[in-house]
Parts: sequence; C-alpha cells; structure tokens
Amino acid sequence: MNVTPIKKAVVLLSGGLDSATTLAVALSKGYQCHAMSFDYSQRHRHELISAGNIARAAGVPHRTVRIDFCAAGASALTSDIDVPKTGTENEIPVTYVPARNTIFLSHALAWAELLEAGNIFIGVNAVDYSGYPDCRPEYITAFEVMANLALKAAVEGKLRIRIHTPLISMSKKEIIEKGTVLGVNYSLTHSCYDPLPEGIACGECDSCRLRKKGFTAAGITDPAVYAPGAK
Amino acid sequence: MNVTPIKKAVVLLSGGLDSATTLAVALSKGYQCHAMSFDYSQRHRHELISAGNIARAAGVPHRTVRIDFCAAGASALTSDIDVPKTGTENEIPVTYVPARNTIFLSHALAWAELLEAGNIFIGVNAVDYSGYPDCRPEYITAFEVMANLALKAAVEGKLRIRIHTPLISMSKKEIIEKGTVLGVNYSLTHSCYDPLPEGIACGECDSCRLRKKGFTAAGITDPAVYAPGAK
Repeated sequence: MNVTPIKKAVVLLSGGLDSATTLAVALSKGYQCHAMSFDYSQRHRHELISAGNIARAAGVPHRTVRIDFCAAGASALTSDIDVPKTGTENEIPVTYVPARNTIFLSHALAWAELLEAGNIFIGVNAVDYSGYPDCRPEYITAFEVMANLALKAAVEGKLRIRIHTPLISMSKKEIIEKGTVLGVNYSLTHSCYDPLPEGIACGECDSCRLRKKGFTAAGITDPAVYAPGAK
Repeated sequence: MNVTPIKKAVVLLSGGLDSATTLAVALSKGYQCHAMSFDYSQRHRHELISAGNIARAAGVPHRTVRIDFCAAGASALTSDIDVPKTGTENEIPVTYVPARNTIFLSHALAWAELLEAGNIFIGVNAVDYSGYPDCRPEYITAFEVMANLALKAAVEGKLRIRIHTPLISMSKKEIIEKGTVLGVNYSLTHSCYDPLPEGIACGECDSCRLRKKGFTAAGITDPAVYAPGAK
C-alpha cells in the first residue's frame, strides 16, 4: 500500500485576493494548510474578518498573531499618513511597511518548525503590485536561504523550509482567473487599504485600483462593495 | 570644519551578560545606540528588568516589544518543559526557541529603517554558547543579505544594513574581560534561564554554568546572586 506523506504548510493569509488564491493553490496541490494572519493595528484591520471567513470556508486551522509594530509611524497603513488615492508613480509608495514580510515570515517560520511543516506559502506578486521590495523573488530566495540556517530542525536535517510564491509572476487578471477555476469565493476577500467603517472598499487606493483592473481584465464581476462615488 | 556623521545603531538587549557587553562595545565605537528588548513570555522575564536598568545606566533609549509567540510550546524557555540542570550534551538543547533571533532581528530591522540606522548589534556567540543555530556566523551573514533586499531604504541606496556581532568568536572569559575594561556593571545583568521568583539565579542551568565558568576563567568575581545550595 502506498501512503502519500502529509505535506504540511503554513499559509500567510491577509484576507485579500492574493492570499485567498494562494491558499486555494496550496490546497489544490494537496498541502495540509495552516493559515496565519497578523494584527499589526493596520488601518484595514477589516481584512482580518475576511481572513477568518476565508479560512473557515476552506476548513483550515487559522491563527492571528498580534504584532507590536515599532515602525508604525513610517507607513500610511499604520499611521495617520494619507493613503494615496490617485495612483502611484514609479516609486515605492507610502503604504510600504518596514520589514513587514520579514516579520510575518519569521513568525511563520517559528510556527512551521513547531508544526513540522516544511512549506510556507505567501501570496507575493511582482507583476501587478505596489513595488514593495519584500515582494520580489530575490528577497524570497534570500529569506529561504536564511531560514534553513536558522532552524534547529533544518540544521539537523529533519526539515527543509521552502517558501512558495505561486503568484509571483502572474498578473492580477491571471490570479483572479486561477482562483475562479479553483472555486475561491472572492466575495469573502478584502483588498482595500483605507476602508469605510463597515469594511466598504474606498475604490481608489492602490490596492482597490489593482483589484478592479484585474477583475475587468478577466471579464469577471468584482463582488467587492465599493463606496458610492468611487472613481 | 569636519563633522563626524552620526552612526546610528539598534542594539538587541536581552539583559544578559553578552548583550550588556555588546551595548558597551557599540557605544565605545561611537555608535548612537537604541536598545531593544523582547517580552515573549519567557520564563526568565526577570531579564527585562535587567535590560531596562542596563539601558538606563548607559543613557540610551530603550523599547521593549511584546511578541505573541506562536511556537511557545516548543521550548523550555516558554513552556512547562524543564530547563536542563546537568549540562547539555553535544546537541541543540530544549532551551532552543524556534526562529527566535530571526523574529528579534526582523523587528530590529523595522526599527532600524524607521530610525535610519544602518547598524544592528546582536550579542550572539559561537564559542561558549548553547549550540543554537541562529547564533552562528553563516546564519547572521544570510540574515544580512536578506535584510538588504527587504528594506525600501536599502533598495533605494539610502541605507545599508550591517549586522554586527562583536562577540561571535570570543570565549565567555574574553567577553567578561572586554566588558570589565569597558566599565560594564555586570551586577545589573541577568543570565539565568530558570530564576527563583525574585530573579535569583538557579546556578545550574546552561546559561548560569557558562556565566560562572567565564567569571572563574577571567579571575573576576561574579556579582550574580545564586540560589543557596547551587552546584
């Protein structure tokens, strides 16, 4: 009798479109997934409700880690700096959060070692993205190298950490098409950086713009609820 | 007129002997230091009182970051697993905490970018140490490579992150001698992994053993208060 070994994975789940699709991809490849979200007092904490709903819909265990974030003042997502609403130029925008993915992946690494999971999935994307440096393939590769030198289980040869980035070279259109095929319920996802109180998307921030453009390009109706009058 | 540029640094300060010496080394080299400690519900949280006292004595700003640590159950320092008292064999001991230095350095990275500090000091040591993989030079080098790909300021050429490990190839004896020359008040430091309620050192854990051995070898009196009857 052939017994397929369990492939365990930690999946970073922000509650957005990309991470929901990443979770669906990981599940479709047979990984036993453990979803992980972060409460870093982000302006769009509404995404954590979405993350919980997505994990529940997928039937996977989910934990939210509270981050005491010391560089909050540096980003529009964690301070009073205005979120840009007129598109971003060819530079890294003020929504950049210092070392965010490094902190997130570090916590994922600790959980992965505890779970004896050799796989971490993260929905970073280097095509239709905001230009954040910690979403690029060279960063991810460097993190993976570091991770395998950091963990006891890796050094002892019991675990090899692999950081999976299934979306990294896909356009937003392709991500939405892929997720739709895999049955992702995008009405559960939240993308907006600057939502109205009930989580209604502003429709104008960088994240909303990329989302809307992706759905339009895919010819699929975006189920997000946008603020009245959003451009 | 020559103006020496300010060299800013984030210094990881656990409150132990090594990190207190590291802070003294960084200050002696002219760095403007910002000390950082972590409350990860460690068994030896008493060390945080020491960290505060050391930072105050050195006159440097200090912040303690609360870590919601998801792999707590895996380590004797963060769970009910007994701290070994009979010395450790040639293996990584149960006091190992998954991804601890990676999480700590990630937070330091965020603070460094906010402060525009290109330097991070960490008191890791690969001679008289517990065998933790994230104290080795190859790990530190890999973290530094990753860090310079992660940060906006690094990618834009405004900051280059350097991880300084001034103690990495020193014996405990040499560390104590160095700190003594620099005027470190070791009575403020706390090393024990398993202290009695008032922070009195057990005298028998791995960390107490390394400390006592170092002071003896240096011919300097250890100002730590040990539990009566400690071997």
